[in-house]
This record gives sequence, C-alpha cells and structure tokens, in this order.
Amino acid sequence: MTKLSRRGILSAVAASAVASPAVAQSMPNLKWRMTTSWPKSLDLTYGVCEELAKYVAELTDGRFQIQVFAGGEIVPPLAATDATSNGTVEMCHTATYYNYGKDPTWALFCAIPFGLNARMQNAWMYDAGGMDVMNEFTRKFNIHSLAGGNTGCQMGGWFRNELKDVASLKGLKFRVGGFAGTVLAKLGVVPQQIPASDIYPALERGTIDAAEWVGPHDDEKLGFYKVAKFYYTPGWWEGGTVLHYLTNLDKWESLPRNYKAALTAAAAFANSLLIARFDSQNPIALKRLLANGTQLRSFSPAIMSACLKAANDVYAETSAQNADFKKVWDNIKAFRNMEYEWWQVAEFNYDNFMVRTAAR
Amino acid sequence: MTKLSRRGILSAVAASAVASPAVAQSMPNLKWRMTTSWPKSLDLTYGVCEELAKYVAELTDGRFQIQVFAGGEIVPPLAATDATSNGTVEMCHTATYYNYGKDPTWALFCAIPFGLNARMQNAWMYDAGGMDVMNEFTRKFNIHSLAGGNTGCQMGGWFRNELKDVASLKGLKFRVGGFAGTVLAKLGVVPQQIPASDIYPALERGTIDAAEWVGPHDDEKLGFYKVAKFYYTPGWWEGGTVLHYLTNLDKWESLPRNYKAALTAAAAFANSLLIARFDSQNPIALKRLLANGTQLRSFSPAIMSACLKAANDVYAETSAQNADFKKVWDNIKAFRNMEYEWWQVAEFNYDNFMVRTAAR
Repeated sequence: MTKLSRRGILSAVAASAVASPAVAQSMPNLKWRMTTSWPKSLDLTYGVCEELAKYVAELTDGRFQIQVFAGGEIVPPLAATDATSNGTVEMCHTATYYNYGKDPTWALFCAIPFGLNARMQNAWMYDAGGMDVMNEFTRKFNIHSLAGGNTGCQMGGWFRNELKDVASLKGLKFRVGGFAGTVLAKLGVVPQQIPASDIYPALERGTIDAAEWVGPHDDEKLGFYKVAKFYYTPGWWEGGTVLHYLTNLDKWESLPRNYKAALTAAAAFANSLLIARFDSQNPIALKRLLANGTQLRSFSPAIMSACLKAANDVYAETSAQNADFKKVWDNIKAFRNMEYEWWQVAEFNYDNFMVRTAAR
Repeated sequence: MTKLSRRGILSAVAASAVASPAVAQSMPNLKWRMTTSWPKSLDLTYGVCEELAKYVAELTDGRFQIQVFAGGEIVPPLAATDATSNGTVEMCHTATYYNYGKDPTWALFCAIPFGLNARMQNAWMYDAGGMDVMNEFTRKFNIHSLAGGNTGCQMGGWFRNELKDVASLKGLKFRVGGFAGTVLAKLGVVPQQIPASDIYPALERGTIDAAEWVGPHDDEKLGFYKVAKFYYTPGWWEGGTVLHYLTNLDKWESLPRNYKAALTAAAAFANSLLIARFDSQNPIALKRLLANGTQLRSFSPAIMSACLKAANDVYAETSAQNADFKKVWDNIKAFRNMEYEWWQVAEFNYDNFMVRTAAR
C-alpha cells in the first residue's frame, strides 16, 4: 500500500534519472485557466489559488501561466468540476462534495460525516494509496486530481435558535454541503446546497434557518454572525475537509514531466499553506466573533449520537447501491479506525494535557 | 504578521512577474551534497531526503542534482549544521535541537517541552512569521532554513523499569535530545544526547536506563522493544517536532530564482510527506510492538505536572540569559496559548468524539 501510494503522489518523478531533453521541448509556453468555487472575499481559499499560479510560474521560469477566476466569473461556483471535465477550463479548485448529487463517491475524497481529521486525510492520500484511489475514480470523469488545501475541523454552523434536542432538527432549513445533507435529512433537516456568495442573503431573509460554511475566519468574512447568534461545534461532517486542484486529464497528460512536477509540488504546497493559514487565523477571528456577541454551543451528546447513527445508516444504504462508493468507503473506514486507535496514544493525549494547561 | 510570513515562505516568488531570462542563465547544471543526521535504516526520515533530491531534479529537468548522505558517511550525524554553516556541504537535513548546546535558541524551531503540536508548528512557520524568525536567527550562522518534515507528537520513550513516581526519575540515565535533557535534569535525570545509530547498543549494554527516539515506526526499526519493555506516552518534549533542510547561506543566495523555488517547494512537500508517512505507518508498527510484548504506559499526572513546572523554570532561566531565546520563546508561547484556546473548540472536540466512537 505504501509503495503504491508513493508512486501515486510522486508519479511525476517515478523515473527521475532521465536524460535532459532540449529546453524548448521541456519548457513550452502555456497559458491555462483555473476556475474556482470561491468568491475573492474568501482570501485564504481563493488566495492560495493565486499563489499556486505564481508558484508554478516561478518554478517554470514564467513559461507556465495559470489565470485564476472567482466562482461565477467564467463558470458557476458549483459547476467547476463539470467545466474541467469537459475542457471548458484546464483546471479548477473546488470541494468535490459539490458533485455528491452526480455520484456520492465524490464526497468521500473531500469531507464526510465522522471521517478522517486533517492529518489523517494527508496520511491516507499521500501514504496509504488515497490519491491513487481518487484518481482511479476521477479518471472516469476525465480528471486528474491533486489535493490542494485543507480547512481542518470545521465549525457546525450558525443557528438563529438554540437546538434544544434532536427534535429541534425537524424542519430546520439548513445550508449544508454535500453528504451531510442526506444524513441530516434522516433527522428531519431540510438541507440546502448554496454557494458561499449566496448564503448570507438567504440567512438574512430567513429563507434558511441556519448555515454552515467553514470556521471563524471565513464565516466572519461572510458575515453570518450579524444574522445568527448561536455558533455550534464541532462540524462533525467536516473533520478535515480536503479541497482539490482538478485538472482535465487530456491537458494533464499533455504536460511535460517537469510541468507535472511543478503543478504537483505547488498543489502540495497549497495543501499545507491553506490549513496553516486557517489554523493561524481562526483563533484571531474567533476572539472577535465572541467579542461581537456570538455564543458558542456544542452539539449535545444526544444530537451527536443520533447523527452518528444516521450517518452509519446512510453509509450502509449508499454502499448497497454504489460499488465505487462501497470500495472507497470501506478503505477509508478501516483506515480511520486504525488511525484513531493510535491517535489516542500520543497525539490526543498530548493535546488533552495542553488544552488543560496551556489554553487557559 | 501574516503579510510578513507570506513573504517569508514564498520569498522565492515575491516578484513573480519577471521577464524570462535565457535558460542557460536560469538553469545551470549544479551538483550539491546533503548530509543528514539519520542512518539509512530510518526509511521515512532518510527516505524523504532522497525524494527531495529526486523532486528538485525533476523540477529542474535534471539540472540541479543533490546527493544525499547518511549520518556519518561524510559528516558525523550531530555535526550536520556545522558542516553546512562552514560550507563543507551545501546543505543538510537535521533536528536543530542538536545545536542546543551551542545556543538553546536552536531548539525552539525544532521541538521544545510543551510546545506547539504539528499543525500549530506549520501555522506558526508558514503564516505567523515563524520561518522569518528562524531565518533571522540562522542567518547568524550563515544558514538559510526551510522546514522539511514533522514527526507529529512523539512517544515518551522506552524504559527498562516502570516509573512509580517523580522520584523514579532520579539518577535515571536517559537518552533524550535537545532541550528536554535540561528540563529532566531538574528532576534528577542524567540526560544523554546520542545519535540514532548508537542508542540501541547503549540501551542493550545498560549504559543507559531508558531511551526515546520518535514513535512506533522508527523505534521498532531501531529495535528498542527488544531491550526495554515499558513504552511511555506522551513525548511531552516533542509535541510536533520539525526537521529542517538547512542550506549554506552563500550557496542559497547563489541559486537562480527558479532553483530557490524548486528547493522551497520540494522542502514543503517533504514537510507534508514525512508526517503523512509517520501518521500512516505508526499505527501499524504499534500493533506489532504490542503483539511482541511491549507495555504501554502513560506518564502519571504527578510526573507530567512536575515536568511542566521544571520546563517553565528552564524557560524563565534561559530567557533571562539569552535575548534571542527570550524573543523567540515569547513569540511561540503567545501563539501556543492562542492556538490551544481555539483548538479545544472544534478540533479537539471532534477528536474526542472520534476517539470514543471510532477507535474501538
């Protein structure tokens, strides 16, 4: 499994001892377009795409240029994958659970209820064959995938009213992405998939009762605290959300080896940078939100247990209907259980001591 | 702070809109030597250095070649930084706390008792000015620094006998790296800094009573379980150890911009890959160790509290004597406390639920 995944992540360097071809062949001038699912106001997520483009240019001495577009500029935010698949653009940056309706397997690579945390996602993708598993699937859509950003564990969203018990979920119109909607629907929630730019007006007008996006930094930018007071935790449906750079497979395969290496390295860099920025900026934003009257709430143990049961039901039902889904989910579930067995020994133990002694 | 750090990590791309110089100038043929502090048996840590070299070659179309050496092949394991500083080699991969005896400030960038966890390390380095702070310091030693690997929270090491109480530490000959030795000495421990390759014979012969290295995967490779039965957790002196690629500053500054970008990207990639591999391989190794009779033990609350107090005393004493140390430590401590305040809200909360429900 390890060997396989190492080929996976470093596929571009698998045969590194090659003779140097002529520079003209190996460094052609290229101009690509990248559409994203993000408004420019999301400075971290959109910003890291601009940096990826700069980095690829730098690595290729200015010869491989990528132009980045906000969601809606040339392609609607939630249509980024389609536009990449059909070659409207060469690549995109998106959350693949937006494609959940087409095939729920897409969600497994991005974020799923009670899934891997951020470090475990990287461990799965980079060392346990995860990127190979993903590319085997996305190849069917004419797409080459690279992990390109993680949010860490997200918050559970903004609610106009407190959740008293499991029954409070009944009839709740909740903006929530991907897979989580199906799980929450089992408990009576009416899920809505709405792109970032349209959430605030929906919450303000009362078209929806609650909305989740990412965490303090992004959520503050989108202004939700102005129209909903209760900020719930944890976002159990996004324990370590991975965003991806998806590339049209024909375009990917047409790249010279060193350009593949440049895009692969820049995506891996973006993958690290984005979570570093969220981890660094979230505590600052949270302090401001609390100072502005936001009230933190934890989902009650009863709600958490009901959601876990509903999630396991959806996993079983979807696995029974979709062979791709079953194969990938079985892989992730076994990895998750093994990871958390180890996690509690050192990492969680350390954090537990530190939370008690350093955070107050 | 954010702006500053973004310049820091992406310094190589700060001015990306440059005209393309002639390829002959921008892509010279270079051969560098990298010494490491690791034996080749440490396949993850040594292995990621080989991959960095391949990746840099790939990114530069085979023109920038880096030859990697195990500790002791051309430079002793613990002398890697010196050899880089004085230009014996162009670069090295090491744990900078090995330089603790020269100046304790070095340890702050690598691992310190009750410091940042792995994700917080990246957040500090990549988005809160940490790499700039480090480079300001290492410039004095004619060194440019790049983060290049993280182990995650380490284990507390292998003990021949159980620790009954704080008094059990008295007189204990313990192989422990860097700063932790000074802290443990306050509690009567006799610390020893021994390179990886020499630990096993020392533990086997009884020259030392206990030894820590990294965690299950590495520790199994080094064979400690054969000569000590009790495996303690957590490694509170290495909550998220960062390894670095250190480059001789003159050599770094002589690199063309695109080669700086290549080395920076490859180091960032190595930084992600190493922890992904530890996270993926540690649970597998731990299972084997437990099957072979290893007994897991947690440091008691009394020992943890005594060590925290001793660490805080050492921080205060060292800060009083060393202005560089004080400046960097004050920065890290403030960042750590802010981080853990946020950590408990979503990330720790999520892990707590998952450890209880997924790990058993």
